[in-house]
Amino acid sequence: MCGTTRQLPVAHRLLEHNDTLAATNRERFHNAGVRVLNLLSSPGSGKTALLERLAAAPPQSALPGRMAVLVGDLATNLDARRLQAAGLVALPLHSGQACHLEASMVARGVDALEAEGVALADLAWLVIENVGNLVCPAAYDLGEELRLVLLSVTEGEDKPFKYPAMFRSADVVVITKIDLAAAVGFDRSAALAALARVAPQAAVVEVSARSGEGIGRLVDLCR
Amino acid sequence: MCGTTRQLPVAHRLLEHNDTLAATNRERFHNAGVRVLNLLSSPGSGKTALLERLAAAPPQSALPGRMAVLVGDLATNLDARRLQAAGLVALPLHSGQACHLEASMVARGVDALEAEGVALADLAWLVIENVGNLVCPAAYDLGEELRLVLLSVTEGEDKPFKYPAMFRSADVVVITKIDLAAAVGFDRSAALAALARVAPQAAVVEVSARSGEGIGRLVDLCR
Repeated sequence: MCGTTRQLPVAHRLLEHNDTLAATNRERFHNAGVRVLNLLSSPGSGKTALLERLAAAPPQSALPGRMAVLVGDLATNLDARRLQAAGLVALPLHSGQACHLEASMVARGVDALEAEGVALADLAWLVIENVGNLVCPAAYDLGEELRLVLLSVTEGEDKPFKYPAMFRSADVVVITKIDLAAAVGFDRSAALAALARVAPQAAVVEVSARSGEGIGRLVDLCR
Repeated sequence: MCGTTRQLPVAHRLLEHNDTLAATNRERFHNAGVRVLNLLSSPGSGKTALLERLAAAPPQSALPGRMAVLVGDLATNLDARRLQAAGLVALPLHSGQACHLEASMVARGVDALEAEGVALADLAWLVIENVGNLVCPAAYDLGEELRLVLLSVTEGEDKPFKYPAMFRSADVVVITKIDLAAAVGFDRSAALAALARVAPQAAVVEVSARSGEGIGRLVDLCR
């Protein structure tokens, strides 16, 4: 459920509270020596497929060690089940009516992982798969070390201009489904130009979860 | 900007206020004899491309008359410009930090259309292209007569399960980009089964804005 711009004082206080909890999360992750990635995109851009590919051999060999996933979804466990089937430790985080994850939900998720015997300190990576949404999750720091924003070739090259807050917040932009680039008439230089304009701070990597292309480079960027 | 589930009393009051304004919009549209469609989907599902196709010959011949578009976007005029270039009357509605349109924004948009000499009563259809988001816009009635939810074949067949509030609110579900179905391995029966389960109230139509397939049927469904 969303408030509106008329509620800015309320929203501002909520974000300040979230930032405080995110700082606590970040310290906890740092002390455990686990690298935490926040994965954001529109619905259907391929967040789960990318994680499935990371779990699969041979790209798994490129992984720096054990990986667990906190899987944000409004209500279902569909993606968590897909990731478990791929051999990953994956725990669903239900956001309910919220269209984004918050730092408090991540803290509870990490508690739940630890209650199941998954020690943070034993993990190399903890990936947070956010709710599919290019707007609101941008404003919520979760305590991550790296923020990855996915853009699939099927969505159109103009998305960085249309969702600037999200792309401006990215450490890495992952262009996904590049195996479909020709079929959808993806204009690669237009997409790269849009990213250079809106998100010059971000590293850009092009991947295909289907073929595995670019996955090794993505892992290297996130190390 | 989004509130959170902790703010439900505030959110509830906001939605009640929105419902009141939506009822006013609906009466205004009814009195003018204009059919109003609310177009919703995730970013990049093809809302604008679908409207471009509706504007183009020959499917335009199927249109019931003059059409105008209110184009929801966070900040840019990119989609409004595309639609103007396609020959449509299109006015941008900037939602700012809000991840959805509200009835008040639509009322102001209609005022602005009329100020530019576009009389509601001269229109056959007024299409509201909502902000690309499968979560929050579901909760905001805009006063529309028909709600169309788009699902592109590239997004995955599980989206109705993952965004149930949105699909449950649809009068028509438009499966888009069906020209890409084979390339992406779209499982048509899985998608239709998911829709039958989550959104049995909705008519379903499969279209390609690229080839024009299904556009005539969509127009018939919306008449």
